[in-house]
Amino acid sequence: MMCSRIKLLKFGRMGLQKENLMTPELIARFKAIVGDRNAITDKAFLESYLVEPRGLYNGCTKLVLLPGNTAEVSAAMALAMETRTPIVPQGGNTGLVGGQQPNKNGNQVIISLKRLNHIRSIDPKSRVVLVEAGVILETLQKKVEAENCLFPLSLASEKTAQIGGILSSNAGGTTVLNYGNARDLCLGLEVVLPDGRILNDLRTVKKDNSGYDIKNLFIGAEGTLGIITVAVMKLFPLPVDRAVAYAGVKSPSAALRLLKLSQDYTGNMLTCFELISRVGIQFSLAYDSQTREPLPAHHPWYVLMTVSSCRLQDQSQKILETILAMAINRGIAEDAVIATSKSQEAGFFRLREGMSPAQKLEGASVKHDISIPVSAIPDFLCDAKKIVEEMVPRARIVAFGHMGDGNLHYNISQPPDIVDKQAFLDRGQEISLRIHTLAVHYDGAFSAEHGIGQMKRNELALFKSPVALDLMRGIKKFLDPRNIMNPGKIL
Amino acid sequence: MMCSRIKLLKFGRMGLQKENLMTPELIARFKAIVGDRNAITDKAFLESYLVEPRGLYNGCTKLVLLPGNTAEVSAAMALAMETRTPIVPQGGNTGLVGGQQPNKNGNQVIISLKRLNHIRSIDPKSRVVLVEAGVILETLQKKVEAENCLFPLSLASEKTAQIGGILSSNAGGTTVLNYGNARDLCLGLEVVLPDGRILNDLRTVKKDNSGYDIKNLFIGAEGTLGIITVAVMKLFPLPVDRAVAYAGVKSPSAALRLLKLSQDYTGNMLTCFELISRVGIQFSLAYDSQTREPLPAHHPWYVLMTVSSCRLQDQSQKILETILAMAINRGIAEDAVIATSKSQEAGFFRLREGMSPAQKLEGASVKHDISIPVSAIPDFLCDAKKIVEEMVPRARIVAFGHMGDGNLHYNISQPPDIVDKQAFLDRGQEISLRIHTLAVHYDGAFSAEHGIGQMKRNELALFKSPVALDLMRGIKKFLDPRNIMNPGKIL
Repeated sequence: MMCSRIKLLKFGRMGLQKENLMTPELIARFKAIVGDRNAITDKAFLESYLVEPRGLYNGCTKLVLLPGNTAEVSAAMALAMETRTPIVPQGGNTGLVGGQQPNKNGNQVIISLKRLNHIRSIDPKSRVVLVEAGVILETLQKKVEAENCLFPLSLASEKTAQIGGILSSNAGGTTVLNYGNARDLCLGLEVVLPDGRILNDLRTVKKDNSGYDIKNLFIGAEGTLGIITVAVMKLFPLPVDRAVAYAGVKSPSAALRLLKLSQDYTGNMLTCFELISRVGIQFSLAYDSQTREPLPAHHPWYVLMTVSSCRLQDQSQKILETILAMAINRGIAEDAVIATSKSQEAGFFRLREGMSPAQKLEGASVKHDISIPVSAIPDFLCDAKKIVEEMVPRARIVAFGHMGDGNLHYNISQPPDIVDKQAFLDRGQEISLRIHTLAVHYDGAFSAEHGIGQMKRNELALFKSPVALDLMRGIKKFLDPRNIMNPGKIL
Repeated sequence: MMCSRIKLLKFGRMGLQKENLMTPELIARFKAIVGDRNAITDKAFLESYLVEPRGLYNGCTKLVLLPGNTAEVSAAMALAMETRTPIVPQGGNTGLVGGQQPNKNGNQVIISLKRLNHIRSIDPKSRVVLVEAGVILETLQKKVEAENCLFPLSLASEKTAQIGGILSSNAGGTTVLNYGNARDLCLGLEVVLPDGRILNDLRTVKKDNSGYDIKNLFIGAEGTLGIITVAVMKLFPLPVDRAVAYAGVKSPSAALRLLKLSQDYTGNMLTCFELISRVGIQFSLAYDSQTREPLPAHHPWYVLMTVSSCRLQDQSQKILETILAMAINRGIAEDAVIATSKSQEAGFFRLREGMSPAQKLEGASVKHDISIPVSAIPDFLCDAKKIVEEMVPRARIVAFGHMGDGNLHYNISQPPDIVDKQAFLDRGQEISLRIHTLAVHYDGAFSAEHGIGQMKRNELALFKSPVALDLMRGIKKFLDPRNIMNPGKIL
């Protein structure tokens, strides 16, 4: 990756005061904090920090710092504050909105937290784990499982995503229905502030009403208010048993009734409830020869659902059978099938997970990560379809998502036989604006789980109330008066 | 209640600029906002707003405003901002730390939210309720139950406590173990800011990553940052079945093992787990003739536990029997009994609830609302006992509380036969300091569920890190630059 050459002459004195340039002297001062071997300046090695999953944001930097502990993060931030050097904190670099990428001018320093990778303690009795920001999600899941505990958060990127980034983006994933998102799982934080001070708010108790809740400001702030270095996360009893099913339903309304029935019947044993349109199933089937039709007949909509239990003698399968029998008897579901083996379970999820890659092969697409109140999903889908049909006749709507959380990935694939993909994509921004507006109209969110980053700054300015924006800006200014903390993200 | 006369001469010009005096003209301007019938100035009617549950804080005021909607709250705050009039928001006036009481100078205006008492909508499918701040907790519980939903928060004061106050104090109560505290139950807020602007952050979706989490600043801020006027709260499936038991155990360590066993076995069906010392049981038995020994023999410690289930065919009693049989077989519990009727269940809880009134009749007491990591409870109790025995030999330790949340009411009753109660109480502050220090030493909190208010401001200054305090002060100053929002509380 080539960085564009810095045009020194472009900056006047005020410009220099506002954002420092990465001179060799300044680079040397940063390197001295972490040691030469933990400072990357070689272009070949910088690259992996500058390429993000979708390839949409191509940032530049001259320096990636790999501090080994909180003190080094603190020293680096103090130097950044002194020299007005913008800092971009980075975890596993799995974000989808460009939040972890520097801009193109090459003067922003990336601080990677990957060396803060220790699980400091696991306390199964108190059900808490003390974990450093650079620990990879999958590592954490496995380590606590060995202690007979569950850390429930689960993401497609869990083999590389790190706890610090997960908290900074308030990640969601497939288990929010029953366990909540990253924010809900966090009890306490240690944060390095933009001026290098260390906030120790590593609370380990569920009940602590001693002053303002500062922790939640940093969760979901995408590294714009400080750098999360250590966290206390909640643990849960490990489920011992689960059952997975596909149900075919006539409509999103029927899926909604199935959701209500399942939750009423199981309490909090329903751990997954995904809505998938027939088009989505077709896409998966067409591009992955290892997938097969989940049910004998075709249905307009499908639900992929899981019931889990912690009780030794519990029979999740029987519970799921009961729910599905009730649903079919009451005319809520048209048909249903429960996986009878682990490999069948895996096949069920493969069909769900195959949709994104399949969609890529079906041509251009415009994607949305929205949420709406669960009860409004049928109406939303009806209205959204009208918008899409009006704007791009014959476009294919691949609507699927975490229905139990009201979170839909409302994706639109190009009509099957068009030549001019760009013409379709050019309409993308307009389509997105209307879909986002519709979600907000239904009291929903235009960004459900991916955040704002660089991608949705305009939407934030458009959809947030002036009062909310004013409070956000004020908090940013108070915590980061020199705007060195991941500038150009969110606000 | 008599208000001390305002000493006008005490205030210089600067003083007057900092805090306005309640002149008849100013009172008239406030009254004009809500209408005469919704402004209380008559001393006889002011009184109920000025007496708090424990009688520790005797504030004064010349004016209580009862706005009927958010616009009136907003207008009142705008006038307060303009005239630098301190405002004390008040809900059900059930707080235990003086947070809802004005000071004694009579220049602070109480804004009671009691007329904002509408449940605006209940959505059983999305499991959310839109509720105004003045709605009483018990009213909310009953209204949503009629829609087959559970609002789980439950407090001793639920017949008078209001949602706004509950959120402002981040109330806990007896159901935190499985459902979380008020903060965990809130999805969105409407807040009137100190300058009268209205923040509409009434999010109704679980997943919304669009910018900083501002809502959580106001939850638990005890009315010092703004006035909560409307909230979106989560609802849950209504349990259809529960079983309640007492277990006798040798020690807090054994209780801890019973907790772990119960949670591992039931997942999240364990909805109550209260630890009670033998002294506590004795107190209840001695003063309430309707209570009886829960078990044939005496045990050093008792656990009161509940298992609840949403499943129609579930048999909570059988599950509880299984857990208790395992516990007895493994030597964790010495004995146990499950309630076989609703009246026996009521008797079990009566024994638990009788402890506080009984303690009042046993003479002077020093009380603590602390939390510590669950696994540290046995060590904490051991260390705390040494402190109490050293400082006040023969004092009686009435330790009980929500063990599953790590929240103990570590109360100390005077030795049974002392003449000089005051000498015991005089040591109270010193004892509290040591008990709070010990809780913090164990990574716990000196205020678990009651908050800071006026009572624990010194402890906050003592135990919070300078960085955390600095952030709190900065946020307060940004949101409330004239310090008119419940001044003298928390910070």
